[in-house]
Amino acid sequence: MPDRSLIFPASEYRQRIARLQAQLAAKDCDALLLTSAADIFYTTGFLTRFWESPARPWFVIVPAQGDPIAVIPSIGADLMGRTWMPDIRTWNAPDPRDDGVTLLSDSLREVTPETGRIATPMGLETHLRMPLADYHAVQHSIAPRQFVDGTDVIQRVREIKSDPEITKIHDICQIADRAFARVPEFAMAGKGIDAIFRDFQIALLTQGADWVSYVAGGAGQGGYGDVISPAPATPLAKGDILMLDTGAVKDGYFCDFDRNFTVGTPNAATARCHDALWHATQDALEQLRPGMTARDLWAILNNGLTGRGATPLGGRLGHGLGITLTEWPSLTPLDDTELRSGMVLTLEPGAVVEGDRILVHEENIVLRDDGPELLTTRAPQTLMTLAE
Amino acid sequence: MPDRSLIFPASEYRQRIARLQAQLAAKDCDALLLTSAADIFYTTGFLTRFWESPARPWFVIVPAQGDPIAVIPSIGADLMGRTWMPDIRTWNAPDPRDDGVTLLSDSLREVTPETGRIATPMGLETHLRMPLADYHAVQHSIAPRQFVDGTDVIQRVREIKSDPEITKIHDICQIADRAFARVPEFAMAGKGIDAIFRDFQIALLTQGADWVSYVAGGAGQGGYGDVISPAPATPLAKGDILMLDTGAVKDGYFCDFDRNFTVGTPNAATARCHDALWHATQDALEQLRPGMTARDLWAILNNGLTGRGATPLGGRLGHGLGITLTEWPSLTPLDDTELRSGMVLTLEPGAVVEGDRILVHEENIVLRDDGPELLTTRAPQTLMTLAE
Repeated sequence: MPDRSLIFPASEYRQRIARLQAQLAAKDCDALLLTSAADIFYTTGFLTRFWESPARPWFVIVPAQGDPIAVIPSIGADLMGRTWMPDIRTWNAPDPRDDGVTLLSDSLREVTPETGRIATPMGLETHLRMPLADYHAVQHSIAPRQFVDGTDVIQRVREIKSDPEITKIHDICQIADRAFARVPEFAMAGKGIDAIFRDFQIALLTQGADWVSYVAGGAGQGGYGDVISPAPATPLAKGDILMLDTGAVKDGYFCDFDRNFTVGTPNAATARCHDALWHATQDALEQLRPGMTARDLWAILNNGLTGRGATPLGGRLGHGLGITLTEWPSLTPLDDTELRSGMVLTLEPGAVVEGDRILVHEENIVLRDDGPELLTTRAPQTLMTLAE
Repeated sequence: MPDRSLIFPASEYRQRIARLQAQLAAKDCDALLLTSAADIFYTTGFLTRFWESPARPWFVIVPAQGDPIAVIPSIGADLMGRTWMPDIRTWNAPDPRDDGVTLLSDSLREVTPETGRIATPMGLETHLRMPLADYHAVQHSIAPRQFVDGTDVIQRVREIKSDPEITKIHDICQIADRAFARVPEFAMAGKGIDAIFRDFQIALLTQGADWVSYVAGGAGQGGYGDVISPAPATPLAKGDILMLDTGAVKDGYFCDFDRNFTVGTPNAATARCHDALWHATQDALEQLRPGMTARDLWAILNNGLTGRGATPLGGRLGHGLGITLTEWPSLTPLDDTELRSGMVLTLEPGAVVEGDRILVHEENIVLRDDGPELLTTRAPQTLMTLAE
């Protein structure tokens, strides 16, 4: 098989490792331990849907100097062997006696001094993807070395996308753009929303997505009730607003944006709300600059809504995007992450139409030195129409 | 929207909670804390693909007596409100100051005595899906209460499927059966393997899958090199064996099985290897009974291969199946889990054809009092043929 697992040339990964090692040095850490699908894909290029199986843990160690080490189940040796990774160590997992604990502990001891500090992500938007009891066993085995919070180490690096990464995200955004353009062909009054969700996934695959990790949406009279539900069998009806939201994947990179459609002419409140969402997004596209914080961008979107008489939703109004469906930062009044050139973000203002009906609008951008550049084809200013 | 989130009637969930509470009593625990998508779906019926976003943690507490409590981000309140769950507590996540830590700690303190033992999964095939630093903060906040390993509490309950669950798994197996039957229509010599993977996902959706969480496979002369890779663009060639493996999803339940196809007449070594895999599976279908262990079933499959001159792969030869792509137990010589009536399992013998070429065969079964019942339509005894 050709080398499909290595999404980028080795130089791309070496640059990432160098940036992670600069972070380790700045934080006086001796190594970084990574356990999540995204972090392991980021450092190695190891891409597989096999993460769906919770059976086995996978590890990458980035020492303060030198090459990273993959410590993985032997079922992954062939695929990891086709990446750039120079040092791959395997065990036959799952092993109830010792599921990689000894191999991981030995590897950590090998590359760190006895008083070493080993960073691993522990903060917001991170998880430790290994059994907790095994983490405690490793902790005990490598003492007096200590684990410390490495959230910043990985997040400050991953959040700045390289040009090849931005191209990948642009590619999948374009695939989803083409799929959204087909929606009026298969979504119309009388068709079950579950059938529409299915056809939308088929359209994404037909347009070139490798797979579809996320489709959600909503439909209801003048707006919808939530944005994370699976599809009901209810047929779409005149007066409904249909929202489809997708995180489709190409070469391991996600898009994450939605589009809204109206079955027939929308009522005045819905049209007004949609107009406020569109213009609030426009405000962000015009005003956002590097050096602002996530909170500043939230304020542009939030004020763009309130200034036009709309009631913003209380949750975040956008977030980072890349090798997971959502990444930090969060566009909320509480997130003071600095927005820098090279960050890929979603602008996702949402507002209440009436009662429990809401609308949510979403675009994907990359922040450049002179401001945002759209990765999605901008949604039209008025709601797109489906056949009654 | 109709009540699609509640896959089963409330009585099904009440029975599950009663069984979990019996386990808690047997282990002298005061509550169970669950954090994973599967465990939360199992106890509540809360089904969403939103777990693709790592941004927010979600919690369910099962006290030793009384109703369970959902402690979740407010973005999920609408969907959780449509499940059977009687007690739902929310916070506006993500919140960098306190992302549910106080709400979770307060809720745990409310339902447990000060000397309480709170079970949470820490063992093989489990992860803690919340930031590690927040787990430590909760641990500190609820002291002198202690977290203890609750792996057995959840696994001994979840591994025995109810009849409604078995029906759901059978449904998705039948959907995949129909999709596999269509493979010769879109897979033939000269077509790129990536295009075949895409068409196979489309076939799964067309046949009724809600979504496709997993497709992997391999293709190569007389056999393939690994079974977890994404698809390359290489065209399928005469003499290739194509394997497609899928974990498609319907109502939150997975199938997990593969099928093998030959482009033209297979060579003798490949045909012999496939025959050994088919007959080893047949041995298991005939000999497996409740009361055997996972190790016993591994031995039936392994001996079925070696007895026919085949060289078994070193990894597990099957595993549990249900609401994740793979569940415990693992069919290895090290797993002594008792196989009981109501367990759903994959039989997945794999063997070396020659050199680095392998073949893997897979069926899904439910174990009944009198032996296995197939959930998949049995693979034909000889390799299915694709056009040259």
